[in-house]
Order: sequence, then C-alpha cells, then structure tokens
Amino acid sequence: MEKQQSVDAGAGLSCPLPISDYKNVLLAHGGGGRLSQQMIQKMFVSQFQNEFLGQLHDGAIVTMNGARLAFSTDSYVINPIFFPGGDIGTLAVNGTVNDLAMCGAVPMYLSAAFIIEEGFEMDELWRVVISMQEAAKRAGVQLVTGDTKVVDKGKGDKIFINTSGIGVIENDVDINPKNARPGDKIILSGTIAAHGIAIMSVREGLEFKTRVESDCAPLNDLVKEMFGASKRIHVLRDPTRGGVATALNEIAESANVGIMIHENRIPIADEVSGACEILGFDPLYVANEGKLLAFVDPAHSERVLSVMQSHPLGKNAVVIGEVTAANPRSVLMRSRIGGTRVVDMLSGEQLPRIC
Amino acid sequence: MEKQQSVDAGAGLSCPLPISDYKNVLLAHGGGGRLSQQMIQKMFVSQFQNEFLGQLHDGAIVTMNGARLAFSTDSYVINPIFFPGGDIGTLAVNGTVNDLAMCGAVPMYLSAAFIIEEGFEMDELWRVVISMQEAAKRAGVQLVTGDTKVVDKGKGDKIFINTSGIGVIENDVDINPKNARPGDKIILSGTIAAHGIAIMSVREGLEFKTRVESDCAPLNDLVKEMFGASKRIHVLRDPTRGGVATALNEIAESANVGIMIHENRIPIADEVSGACEILGFDPLYVANEGKLLAFVDPAHSERVLSVMQSHPLGKNAVVIGEVTAANPRSVLMRSRIGGTRVVDMLSGEQLPRIC
Repeated sequence: MEKQQSVDAGAGLSCPLPISDYKNVLLAHGGGGRLSQQMIQKMFVSQFQNEFLGQLHDGAIVTMNGARLAFSTDSYVINPIFFPGGDIGTLAVNGTVNDLAMCGAVPMYLSAAFIIEEGFEMDELWRVVISMQEAAKRAGVQLVTGDTKVVDKGKGDKIFINTSGIGVIENDVDINPKNARPGDKIILSGTIAAHGIAIMSVREGLEFKTRVESDCAPLNDLVKEMFGASKRIHVLRDPTRGGVATALNEIAESANVGIMIHENRIPIADEVSGACEILGFDPLYVANEGKLLAFVDPAHSERVLSVMQSHPLGKNAVVIGEVTAANPRSVLMRSRIGGTRVVDMLSGEQLPRIC
Repeated sequence: MEKQQSVDAGAGLSCPLPISDYKNVLLAHGGGGRLSQQMIQKMFVSQFQNEFLGQLHDGAIVTMNGARLAFSTDSYVINPIFFPGGDIGTLAVNGTVNDLAMCGAVPMYLSAAFIIEEGFEMDELWRVVISMQEAAKRAGVQLVTGDTKVVDKGKGDKIFINTSGIGVIENDVDINPKNARPGDKIILSGTIAAHGIAIMSVREGLEFKTRVESDCAPLNDLVKEMFGASKRIHVLRDPTRGGVATALNEIAESANVGIMIHENRIPIADEVSGACEILGFDPLYVANEGKLLAFVDPAHSERVLSVMQSHPLGKNAVVIGEVTAANPRSVLMRSRIGGTRVVDMLSGEQLPRIC
C-alpha cells in the first residue's frame, strides 16, 4: 500500500508498480479485465484507502445516522448509444439499479449527470431522457438530482451519462463477495452474452436470422423475491464488463475460494452462441446487463432457484456450479467433453465501450 | 408538463418547447446560464418530475430509513486539467463537498467515476488521484466507491471526473433556495471571480503581475461554524458557473423575491478585477469555487458574519445586499455612482468548461 506521506504533490510523483509498466492509459484499462483491476487496485484503492473501497463491491456499504445504505456510481460511455433492446439511458438507470441490488440494497434514488458533445441532436437527447424516465419507473426508483456539462465538438462522443445511486440495506442482509464459502451453490439467472453481442452486431453491421437484443433490465425486483425465499444468499454479482468469467474470478479472489462451473449447464441462446462463433468471442467473457450470479447456502439453493424461475427475469435460472475449498483464487470449468480447464480473468479489452 | 403516456419511445418524439428552438446542443446549454436552466427545466425536470428534482437545489434532500440526507452529483470537464490553485481532482472533490454543504448537509461519502481518453498519461492520472485524496482528507470526506471507463483517442479530452456525494442533514437545519424572504441579509464569503480568471489566464497565456489562483476550497467547515452561530440561515449557494449574478437570479426566482445588492460592497482582488477588464468579463458572472452566498435572518446576520470572518475561508465575508419584497424575481444592483441596474442571468456561455 502507498503511504500518503511519501507523496510530494505536484512534483516528483511516481506511479506505483505495475501501473508504471504503462506510461499511458490503454482502452484495456477500462475493459473490466485484469488491467482494469490492476489500475483500480494499484492506483485508486492504494491512494483512497479506506474500509469501504477495500470491499471491491459493486458499491460501498455505509451507515449514516443509523441507516445502512449502499452507494454506487457508474459512467456509461456505450457506443452506439441506441441499440437493440435499449439505449444509453436505459442502461444508465438499470446498470446502477443493479449495482445497488448486488449490494443487497433496495435501490431508491439515482442521480444523472450528462456530458454532452456540442452539436448532439436535441431529439436524441430527448429520446435518452425518456428512456431514463421509463427505466426509472420500471425499476421503482427516482432520478432526484443531476448535472449537465457540454464539451466542445470533438472532445466527447455524443453523450456520456453518469448515474450514482443510493439504496437501503435491511439489517438481516449481508451480501459481500468475501462471503462466498465452500459448498455454496452458484446460480446464474439466465442466458448469457446477449448485451455484448447486441452491441457488436450493430457495430459490425451483422445480420442474424433473429435479431439479438440486449438483456438490459433492472434486477432489483428479482433480488427482492430471492431475499423473500432466503437470507442465506452470500454473494450477488451482475456479470457486466468481462462477463461471467471475470465476475467469478473476482469473487474467487475476494473470498479466497475455488470455483467449479459446468459448461453444459450454462444457458445461452442459439443466436447468441452462433454470433459468438462468427465474431470469435468466448461468451463467458461477453457482457450481460440483466443477469446475476448468486452464491447461496446449499441448504437454501433450491428454494432460491425456485423463486427465481417464477420471475420473468429468472425463468432460465440454473445452478451452474459450486464453491470449492480446493484451488483457491481459481475458476475451473468442466467442459462438455469431460475435461477441466482454467477460466482466467479477461486480460485485455475484448469489447471496448460496451457499457 | 409532458405526459409519459403521450410518448411513443423510439419514434415520433418531439422535444418540449423551447428546447426545439435549438436542434442541437450548444456549449451554452452547459454554461450554467439561461440556456442551461431552460434545458434542465424543460427537458429533465419535466420528464423526471418528482418532488426532489423540483427543489432545484445543489442536491436532493431525501429521507432514508429515518436519516435525512443530501445527495448531489457533478461531472467535471474543466480545461486545462491542471491550473493555478488546483486541478480537476481538487475541483471534483471540493465541488461536490460544497454542493452538499450548500444543502445544509455534513458531507460524508463521495464516489469518483473517471472517463479517461485513451493515451492519457499515467503520471498525470496519478497526480489527479493524489489531489483527490488530499482534497478528501482536507474536507474530511471519504472516497468510497468508483468507476473507470476509457474511451478511444479523440472521443474524450484527457479526463472527465464525476463525483457524487451524500451527507447528513441535522433535523434543525432547513436550507432551501425557496426559503429566501424579504429582509434577509445576503452575505458573500469573500472575493469573487478568482476561479474563472485563473482558468482563463492559463488558456489565454496571460501573465499578470500577481498570478491569479483559483479559490477552489471545501466550504463545509465554514458552514459548520455558521450553523454553530445560528440556524436561521435560509439559503446557501456557492456561485460557481455563471457566478454571483446567476446564483442570485436563481434564488430570486425560486423564492419569488427581489434582491438588491450594492456594487461597492462586493469584494474583488485587484489583480482579478484588472484581469476581468483586460478580458472583457463582468466579474459578477465569473465562476467561483470556494465562495458562498448565505441568506440570513437579519436578527442573526451579525453573528453569522462574525464567525465567518474568523474562519480562514470567510475572512473577507461581507453583507452585499438584502432580499426585498419589491421587484420579485429580479436582482438589482446599486452602482458605485448611485444608479440602479438590473443584473440579469447569464444568457449564453461566458467561459466554457470552467468546471
């Protein structure tokens, strides 16, 4: 850990290793994989050190005047801003709603901050604003405060949106990536990789027999149902940038446990699977925006799975694997044909600006 | 007000007037003046309509599990990112700390979300991160959650930072721009226009005898002292984009009152005043980042002024005017030579990307 007193602000600063391996920021530093994680750990966590940031959660869990709250932030820089199944506005609301839900919180209030490129069309801004309001209504949250900045043409890209959010955590809920423990069943709420493929198919101008739509959706109602069935849910995580593989790796590292998943149980739509083959992507690394992973006490996994399957956003939920004491900090996958391979964290940038 | 049911998402949308006067977003829509206010009102407030956003405060005041909280967000797109008296990191922390303080809250937790342009130098990022940590330490807040996105070269401008923040509001505090009432004394905490001039002097490569430094500073400790002296403070506002003139106009409109200020009482440093003359700026419209306006019950204004003058960030505090029942929704200024003129809201963009 960097010590603050060793820092002479304004002059003679040097970056902590291994950031100094890179003199400049690469796209991959924002890709959600290994390089992102390194930059966050070595630069932000080391400098802003505090008990909250160290949680490496989708948000921070804080207590204010006796209320236990989750607080989360995300900036959305997706390209294109309109895509099958949603737009940057839908994504900005659902993404932050989901981050709060993944902390075990009931999302309540969101902020919205816009960085708009000079010349952006008012009609497009209006469509985005309407999408945000509709998404907020669907998720049952309110957009309560905001900010608008405009940057010169060529210094932005149409529109970037930051949403931050706060939600209330009930006292008997304790969700944390560190809480994964051997024996936990790992439930995936549905088919994977739709969001990333929807975006790539627009960018590449690909036509499939069936149009692939982003799975962008608010997961807070599904989580509420899950808590209704059991409070013995240890970890929740929405596998966005970096996909299921990266999310599982992060959890295995946080909790110092091993993870074993089974390839033949991982649900994926045929058209998404086909598109992944054409594009050369491993669907385990492709972003989702309406799916969650739940790590559940094995004694309660059936009842949690059952309520998930009764919910529209969890109807394809399935147990994809379990937590092991063996192979700590690793994710292994038993393949369809019987072998076992390591599923590593995404090391570079697979799909830039996917969210 | 737009009705949501009249909207057919994705097609046939039309913007509410008068936004449709502009087919494209202009720099001035982010400038903090009249056009910004119109866009916020007609586009965001009309669509996201709720009791919180309607407050048009520097943040929203919400209640969560019994705790009364302020929640605020701001994106910082300042150019240049390093300037005399601070950098984008200092500004991002102090700006949001101040927005919370202007809600009457004790700022506690901040988020930090980075949008970095590919190729940005790691050493510069590191300097910004250190500035943020130092600013957070000085202000007594913690940076508890974050996000990092990287956009392709030419689609951003070095670095944009969003900070959102939450703070606790004590039960006996009630700060709101609507609370300004005739008779209130208007206190300004110090000399004006330093931030905007510091930025412009760097951009224009101007050299003055004395280097003008931004006044960027956290105001929460000053506000704490003020509340210690009196709870009869009705409005707090930090006059950032658009300056003192715009802030006063917004308050006059919110509270439906008139405001009279006295030109000869408004403190300004000689070098700032000189630079404004050279650059052709009216200092009343130039941004500040470490100053506040307080509207105080006249019976308590002396005691509030006195504690302000004892604080390093309020040593030049002075009563610059008062609230009137006459001339509602207008700001008037009695000039040095005796006349009275209307001080209108900034209508366009005076200084783009000043914060």
